[in-house]
Amino acid sequence: MTIPTSLTETVAKLRAEVCLLHSELTRWGLVTWTSGNVSARVPGADLMVIKPSGLSYDDLTPESMVVCDLDGTVVDGAHGPSSDTDSHAYVYRAMPEVGGVVHTHSPYATAWAARGEEIPCVITAMADEFGGPIPIGPFALIGSDDIGKGIVETLSGHRSPAVLMRSHGPFTIGKNAKAAVKAAVMCEDVARTVHFATLRGPVQPLPQHHIDSLYDRYQNVYGQRSTPAA
Amino acid sequence: MTIPTSLTETVAKLRAEVCLLHSELTRWGLVTWTSGNVSARVPGADLMVIKPSGLSYDDLTPESMVVCDLDGTVVDGAHGPSSDTDSHAYVYRAMPEVGGVVHTHSPYATAWAARGEEIPCVITAMADEFGGPIPIGPFALIGSDDIGKGIVETLSGHRSPAVLMRSHGPFTIGKNAKAAVKAAVMCEDVARTVHFATLRGPVQPLPQHHIDSLYDRYQNVYGQRSTPAA
Amino acid sequence: MTIPTSLTETVAKLRAEVCLLHSELTRWGLVTWTSGNVSARVPGADLMVIKPSGLSYDDLTPESMVVCDLDGTVVDGAHGPSSDTDSHAYVYRAMPEVGGVVHTHSPYATAWAARGEEIPCVITAMADEFGGPIPIGPFALIGSDDIGKGIVETLSGHRSPAVLMRSHGPFTIGKNAKAAVKAAVMCEDVARTVHFATLRGPVQPLPQHHIDSLYDRYQNVYGQRSTPAA
Amino acid sequence: MTIPTSLTETVAKLRAEVCLLHSELTRWGLVTWTSGNVSARVPGADLMVIKPSGLSYDDLTPESMVVCDLDGTVVDGAHGPSSDTDSHAYVYRAMPEVGGVVHTHSPYATAWAARGEEIPCVITAMADEFGGPIPIGPFALIGSDDIGKGIVETLSGHRSPAVLMRSHGPFTIGKNAKAAVKAAVMCEDVARTVHFATLRGPVQPLPQHHIDSLYDRYQNVYGQRSTPAA
Repeated sequence: MTIPTSLTETVAKLRAEVCLLHSELTRWGLVTWTSGNVSARVPGADLMVIKPSGLSYDDLTPESMVVCDLDGTVVDGAHGPSSDTDSHAYVYRAMPEVGGVVHTHSPYATAWAARGEEIPCVITAMADEFGGPIPIGPFALIGSDDIGKGIVETLSGHRSPAVLMRSHGPFTIGKNAKAAVKAAVMCEDVARTVHFATLRGPVQPLPQHHIDSLYDRYQNVYGQRSTPAA
Repeated sequence: MTIPTSLTETVAKLRAEVCLLHSELTRWGLVTWTSGNVSARVPGADLMVIKPSGLSYDDLTPESMVVCDLDGTVVDGAHGPSSDTDSHAYVYRAMPEVGGVVHTHSPYATAWAARGEEIPCVITAMADEFGGPIPIGPFALIGSDDIGKGIVETLSGHRSPAVLMRSHGPFTIGKNAKAAVKAAVMCEDVARTVHFATLRGPVQPLPQHHIDSLYDRYQNVYGQRSTPAA
Repeated sequence: MTIPTSLTETVAKLRAEVCLLHSELTRWGLVTWTSGNVSARVPGADLMVIKPSGLSYDDLTPESMVVCDLDGTVVDGAHGPSSDTDSHAYVYRAMPEVGGVVHTHSPYATAWAARGEEIPCVITAMADEFGGPIPIGPFALIGSDDIGKGIVETLSGHRSPAVLMRSHGPFTIGKNAKAAVKAAVMCEDVARTVHFATLRGPVQPLPQHHIDSLYDRYQNVYGQRSTPAA
Repeated sequence: MTIPTSLTETVAKLRAEVCLLHSELTRWGLVTWTSGNVSARVPGADLMVIKPSGLSYDDLTPESMVVCDLDGTVVDGAHGPSSDTDSHAYVYRAMPEVGGVVHTHSPYATAWAARGEEIPCVITAMADEFGGPIPIGPFALIGSDDIGKGIVETLSGHRSPAVLMRSHGPFTIGKNAKAAVKAAVMCEDVARTVHFATLRGPVQPLPQHHIDSLYDRYQNVYGQRSTPAA
């Protein structure tokens, strides 16, 4: 497979965007050394743009991003793609509404994953962003479809754009790569706050009707409040 | 309502000041992604200057700040105002001495809020800045006057310029926006230190007469020690 | 009192040094907003150079540093001196070997201070730098000699250059201001590590003879290993 | 001993590399003040390049790095070598496959060392990098061969490139200095995550066959996925 000429410009823009979004992973402390990766679906093609494997975040450039098809085969790129490419690809194949996928080992979220304990929805910011608890996905080894399957099974029909893969770490999805990065950033933020909160005793989850109300409002109103005509 | 011509310069200065103060929220680690907002009352008018909704901190400019009246209606600005605008507005209407309001989800303070547990006054820095414990406000949903009411009810007649809204996070007030930002920064600082201190057992609050003495001195003497004439 | 002409250059150098050392407090996360201060004794005179009160760390310049006599009276400076000036002055009067004093509310050290619990000497880095536990000083209110007295009483004859003033925070001393800053940095470092270590159960202090051996070596050998002649 | 002329260029490159790698220690928060050091073996000679003792990280330059023989005697350099030079030298003498050694007092790893508790292998990232738990080495005083012996005894035949020397801190090894630095960075990363995870209860280690599978894959496949011919 090759990149259709009509998508040359789209792919170039996505390379730049995916490259830049990795700097949000370092800025918010989600990644260590070369762990963590961002990908974006190429709209209008069975392609994605993803981080190269094993490169330092300092050395990432738009050109070093790798274009793969949705089986994880490299279509364009001088480097090998992220070792998590197959998992990203599985998600894009199974969830057509997903335009971006992010994986990190961010420390607080990974600590919940290590215990296999979902993050309970105890603060309004979690209700806003995740619409409830952040769920645990199954334990799965890298190197087959198991991680991708686990992500899709857990997140299909779930409000949360984040899943904590058991004993591994968070994967997040979004309508585009930026939304998936935001979900990764907020996932670590609430994982940290709820970790602090629950260290000194149990904390009551928010009542479901409050969660529903907060989630509905945040998804439909936030950031779009009407502005004056001029 | 429009901005009176006599206040054009004042509003321009406040736009710049409110914009700049958001960099203190990121510098001290109080905010994640686009959470958190600062506002300032416009002295001499029923107006305030507040952060636009949903913009990244990197993209804030003085021009992007939004001017609203004290009902939360936009008077001047190309963006919609913060989703917390109604809460800020309520505080300005009810507490004429307040010139600045700040809201964050800073992690340690929000952890206390999630437990609904006031921060006990166990260190002299807390007595200095807050004059006692940092209180818990009621649980309130966004989208009505409830948050604003909860802030005002809790802080009216209270020494603390900070309230931890239950299951939500801190709101702080000040005579101006900078003072409210300082209160937000110090609130997270003491929330963190007291979190650490109490993780390994109960800590005795300071005796009330020591708190009174420290608070009185800090509010009236600190930063104003006499200097030589030349 | 005035600055002797013979010391003009010395004082100018100390103003620059004390100003610069404050950037180490922010770099290592020891201070929040304007809390925390560094001073240096002026060798050959009953004078010291100290941080101005209430100024932001960004705004510190060598010129803004304040020269005081050892009663805390301002001798030269456009700003009022730190509110902790009297405590620094007391230490310089009582301990002639001390050339620098630092005070912070660094979070982990202050957490130990809030509990009134000395930091046990459980790691070799603590034996190296502090020669044993970091002791707790008495509770003392600002505004008299009590804090200074508490520091001097606790540290006189003690190996540790750091004391945790009860319910307040750490004060550190050194042969010069840089050494006192290093002690403040290392105090927070070990306060943090020992906090982490003891969160999950008691940790045995190092045997005294190991502490003695490590302390002796570090104070007498470290940083001075012989180098080749050319 | 002197540096053979044939190695002049190699040594110059290693000085620059070792110098630069220290910036990774500060970037990832592994070191405080002057603690922590990196060394590299000089291939083809019984020499190593190591950090000078007691210099601030800001002041390190390639020229300030010290060349020592594998008994720890300085061969070239204007400064004394790190006080941990003898330990590095011992490791190079005993483990010919090791090309780099790193020592830090990174806080989470040192907390495990203070308790004398190995870090259990509870997350896939640990299986990848360390192939099992990170072991505890014996308590040993600086100033003899004891630390070096303890490192070698613990790591010989062990998958982990990191050892937590009891009551002291982590030492890591690698085929070169960069690999040893990576091991130090990842050691602190997993020490932190597993600290968080285990604070709220016991966490089950991964089954051995999963650890074996992950370790094998990571060591042999990661970063080397095949790329297209052009």
